Amino acid sequence: MSAGARKWWGWGVEGAGPTPEQAQAIARTVAGRFGSAVEPRPPPRLDAIALPKPRVTPPAALAACVSDAPEARAGHHYGKSYRDVVRAFRGELPSPPDQVAFPRDEAEVAAVLDWCGAAGITVVPYGGGSSVVGGVETAIPGAHAVVSLDLGRLDRVLEIDRVSRAARIQAGVLGPALEDQLRPHGLTLRHFPQSFEFSTLGGWIATRSGGHYATLYTHIDDFVESLRVLTPAGVVETRRLPASGAGPSPDRLFIGSEGILGVITEAWMRLQDRPSHREGASVRFDGPDGFLRGAEAVRRLAQSGLHPSNCRLLDPQEAQTSGAGDGSHAVLVLGFESADHPQDARLARALELCRDGGAASPGRRDGRQGRPQADAGGVGDPAGAWRRAFLQAPYVRDVLVACSVIAETFETAIPWSAFPTFHRSVMEATRDAVLRVCGAGTVACRFTHVYPDGAAPYYSVLAPSRPGSELAQWAEIKAAAVEAIVRGGGTITHHHAVGRDHRPGYDRERPDLFAAALRAAKRALDPRGLLNPGVLIDV
Amino acid sequence: MSAGARKWWGWGVEGAGPTPEQAQAIARTVAGRFGSAVEPRPPPRLDAIALPKPRVTPPAALAACVSDAPEARAGHHYGKSYRDVVRAFRGELPSPPDQVAFPRDEAEVAAVLDWCGAAGITVVPYGGGSSVVGGVETAIPGAHAVVSLDLGRLDRVLEIDRVSRAARIQAGVLGPALEDQLRPHGLTLRHFPQSFEFSTLGGWIATRSGGHYATLYTHIDDFVESLRVLTPAGVVETRRLPASGAGPSPDRLFIGSEGILGVITEAWMRLQDRPSHREGASVRFDGPDGFLRGAEAVRRLAQSGLHPSNCRLLDPQEAQTSGAGDGSHAVLVLGFESADHPQDARLARALELCRDGGAASPGRRDGRQGRPQADAGGVGDPAGAWRRAFLQAPYVRDVLVACSVIAETFETAIPWSAFPTFHRSVMEATRDAVLRVCGAGTVACRFTHVYPDGAAPYYSVLAPSRPGSELAQWAEIKAAAVEAIVRGGGTITHHHAVGRDHRPGYDRERPDLFAAALRAAKRALDPRGLLNPGVLIDV
Repeated sequence: MSAGARKWWGWGVEGAGPTPEQAQAIARTVAGRFGSAVEPRPPPRLDAIALPKPRVTPPAALAACVSDAPEARAGHHYGKSYRDVVRAFRGELPSPPDQVAFPRDEAEVAAVLDWCGAAGITVVPYGGGSSVVGGVETAIPGAHAVVSLDLGRLDRVLEIDRVSRAARIQAGVLGPALEDQLRPHGLTLRHFPQSFEFSTLGGWIATRSGGHYATLYTHIDDFVESLRVLTPAGVVETRRLPASGAGPSPDRLFIGSEGILGVITEAWMRLQDRPSHREGASVRFDGPDGFLRGAEAVRRLAQSGLHPSNCRLLDPQEAQTSGAGDGSHAVLVLGFESADHPQDARLARALELCRDGGAASPGRRDGRQGRPQADAGGVGDPAGAWRRAFLQAPYVRDVLVACSVIAETFETAIPWSAFPTFHRSVMEATRDAVLRVCGAGTVACRFTHVYPDGAAPYYSVLAPSRPGSELAQWAEIKAAAVEAIVRGGGTITHHHAVGRDHRPGYDRERPDLFAAALRAAKRALDPRGLLNPGVLIDV
Repeated sequence: MSAGARKWWGWGVEGAGPTPEQAQAIARTVAGRFGSAVEPRPPPRLDAIALPKPRVTPPAALAACVSDAPEARAGHHYGKSYRDVVRAFRGELPSPPDQVAFPRDEAEVAAVLDWCGAAGITVVPYGGGSSVVGGVETAIPGAHAVVSLDLGRLDRVLEIDRVSRAARIQAGVLGPALEDQLRPHGLTLRHFPQSFEFSTLGGWIATRSGGHYATLYTHIDDFVESLRVLTPAGVVETRRLPASGAGPSPDRLFIGSEGILGVITEAWMRLQDRPSHREGASVRFDGPDGFLRGAEAVRRLAQSGLHPSNCRLLDPQEAQTSGAGDGSHAVLVLGFESADHPQDARLARALELCRDGGAASPGRRDGRQGRPQADAGGVGDPAGAWRRAFLQAPYVRDVLVACSVIAETFETAIPWSAFPTFHRSVMEATRDAVLRVCGAGTVACRFTHVYPDGAAPYYSVLAPSRPGSELAQWAEIKAAAVEAIVRGGGTITHHHAVGRDHRPGYDRERPDLFAAALRAAKRALDPRGLLNPGVLIDV
């Protein structure tokens, strides 16, 4: 495998992430905290694993864009949830796709769908493969054969409408390649999920991904101007419109459809000018109730119409883990940005709201925030440093998996009035499960996005596990968390999607008759049920 | 008919609108312009019209909430489009609903659906009856019998969540009654379509109504936190969530469904604090290209992130008609508002963008705008005066109908890059048709809502017609406009909905496979096809 190739069992590309020395240091740190393994186990070797023989072969016309190479099949077996990485790390690859298709254009996507339709082969649409909910998994009960349909070669910006600030973009483009193509035009999508480097535009749209903006434009949804979707029944192309009141939105049927209705091949996306005015600050909320007081201040901020682009409230545990605090206080990280006008008055008013809400410190302004910054960040650039750490986190998790440490997250959203009780219940249920199942561990919380009517809390679990029992242990913890979330009135996912893993929670959350309507819509668009069975609905 | 009762043939309530003297003055004005009738014809008398006998009668259990009174049946025959008012004014009532149901609670809504389901009766859900697209019309080919289901008695705010700024509201409440119930709590929905006084929350949601905000929260869609919908197959209730990424949004399937999937009975709505900071100004763009230069300035404003609540660009004709200009220049009316912080810097920056964009005048600030205002407006309050005139317009149209003057509007949305060519084409097609068909008349344009990627232009037609030929003449004009809109890439409706009247344009705009999915969803929720056949899709 060449240097820089995608790692088949874990995050990112071979050779990136922590060096062996850094991995050792991470292992020592967690060993000191949890008594876990000091020596990370070596990663799995693909040449030592026997993959089942492919059950189908592509027609000659598709041979050039369909592969059954072991790296391709192993790399497309799972997504990148904790559970996925553990299984891949163990070398458990019982049900890889029989073939992986890498269509080079939309005609080849259609040809793959035609082949699979005629041969009764199940198709799993695959963007960057970063699903953490089993959305691209190819172990599909009852499937005659499975093709993973990797859109990664559809990676170009096809057209730019500078006046309307929009672009027609192929769905398989990864985050960095997308931004690289927009930058010369002074434009940006400004959608930076944690998976940014290894997730695609089509994946973001199919999963209602959460991005850069903490308020207002939180999900990708609002940036979609129109879609082009290949369904087994034919092409769906919606009209490019800034808005419409003509019936239920066709785009919204496909946004969040997770590959069960069709394969998104292109989208016209609404873009932003690159911001030139920025202000940022961090604010402390002290004491045992600091997080809840911080939440109350954030509520007022979210209802103020100030629209911060960053409004990340970290509980003391989360602040400590990320280096923003010592574990004694909650921290609110605030950011404002604009391509048009100064943001100092907005930040000042936001800090006033925080002070009124009992913030301990008057708000530390980030020194460099007033000046334009490169998106990539630089030395001495706290936002950039945070962003790099944020993007590194999945690499670190690979090390933790090698040390048999459970490292996983889950997220939800809940109205403000329910938040205090809800949060306590989710924290207690999760912590109790962690201690019962693992004997030790931490549960931390931050807000990733906030709304006038509620918040999106994001929970991170870190706990030692018994090698070999990681998945059963995590399953028990996750079940406790899901129960608290669903019972408490939250959503099973704010921006990680449903996939196969969240089905039990989703089935309790969504109205039964909506599932009936969705099944009916699927039958109209995918009459043979080729696409991603088991995701969102059973057919 | 008692004073204050709803007028069965036209807008609003009996006795409201222009006095006989004012009506005479309006008639004289248009007669001077077009040579139309100086004397408005007298309105129709219901007692002179023979309605067809009801084909069904309700079961005894529903007798108390179902009526076949002539006023009820005549008043529920049509919506309030120009075409509707002309037909009603002529006394053409060939297909009124056989019965009109006025359920007093959700159980009675369910009972009406059960009755109609068992008896094969077509059901037309009816909110305030203000549809201008044939959305509530009861002339339904092939229907065995028709019941108009008027939700008007479900008119209460049931629950208020002050912390989350949301309320659970019954769908049949009219705008003023809704605001009256929210006001004591310091809250407002701030959704003011032109039909505000005679349209309902459920109607706004079912038709994706456009409201108060010119930017950001333009449609009702974003204010919907959750829905409760009675379908013939059962109840759909979505979870109250500030946001979710769990599959396609269930709410978005029902928002804009125009009564074909179910009857919306309740919604949790996101509310606003009542604004206390306001700034406003009007700006002139002179010369023959003033409107297009104004549009370019508005584009920069819409892309600036300043989020004006009012951003209404009037072309010279529209400015003259509304008294904001003399016909020589375009006018941009700008407004900013907040319940939290001053808006002067935002207005100043907006005016700067207008100056950079070639505004003739430096921007006249509205004197009273800096101070809090009552929503109803008062003497010397230009915003309030404009709003009153805006709400009076449909009453004035009734007078114009009585004078055989065509007075109708249509609206659309289009990306900025396409706007100049599109607008020219729509104006030319419509003006040519007006002159060809009527010999005289005017076509005016304003922006009602604007977006970072495009605008929502709204066109008003005023033309003399031959008594008896009004509908054929209007149909020819409208067909020319629709052709230009659909061909030019616009939407058939930005906020008036599709109903039955916009079907030809809608059928060309929406992807065929989306219609197939929608039909399939309808079969799942309304298997017998009771609800509003002919609206959005044929079943």
